[in-house]
Amino acid sequence: MPSELEKSLSNLIDVYHNYSNIQGNHHALYKNDFKKMVTTECPQFVQNINIENLFRELDINSDNAINFEEFLAMVIKVGVASHKDSHKE
Amino acid sequence: MPSELEKSLSNLIDVYHNYSNIQGNHHALYKNDFKKMVTTECPQFVQNINIENLFRELDINSDNAINFEEFLAMVIKVGVASHKDSHKE
Repeated sequence: MPSELEKSLSNLIDVYHNYSNIQGNHHALYKNDFKKMVTTECPQFVQNINIENLFRELDINSDNAINFEEFLAMVIKVGVASHKDSHKE
Repeated sequence: MPSELEKSLSNLIDVYHNYSNIQGNHHALYKNDFKKMVTTECPQFVQNINIENLFRELDINSDNAINFEEFLAMVIKVGVASHKDSHKE
């Protein structure tokens, strides 16, 4: 049986593929689908953020697409923000 | 209603606190509890890994504990490995 950590990771992989597969590519999330993903999946995180800038910042190898490793960098950003929120009284 | 991404992150935060709270500290996961966590939560990932080395590698600020941000760095490592596995035939 998968652990809680494994289930969470498997869900994150599914989230990424749900959007990257819109344009038929398992390993590239293009800008439009990225926008769709962040506004759907982490609306609070992006409400005061310029999504174009976030995309450019995450796209380390400048190939105009977010690969899975670059997606995980975003997950960290959202995770750190959520963790802070989880300790707010 | 939380999104899939938000649910996964919330679960990851819970996993971290499940182990960090064993010694009563919300923001520090000590070595023994870290070992307990990785052998329970990602047994496959650590089966061929020296856990002492992994702990030292993750403990960027060398305070002998893994904070939440350092934990997320491990999640990335496990995530990249699981993602590769998910595409194996």
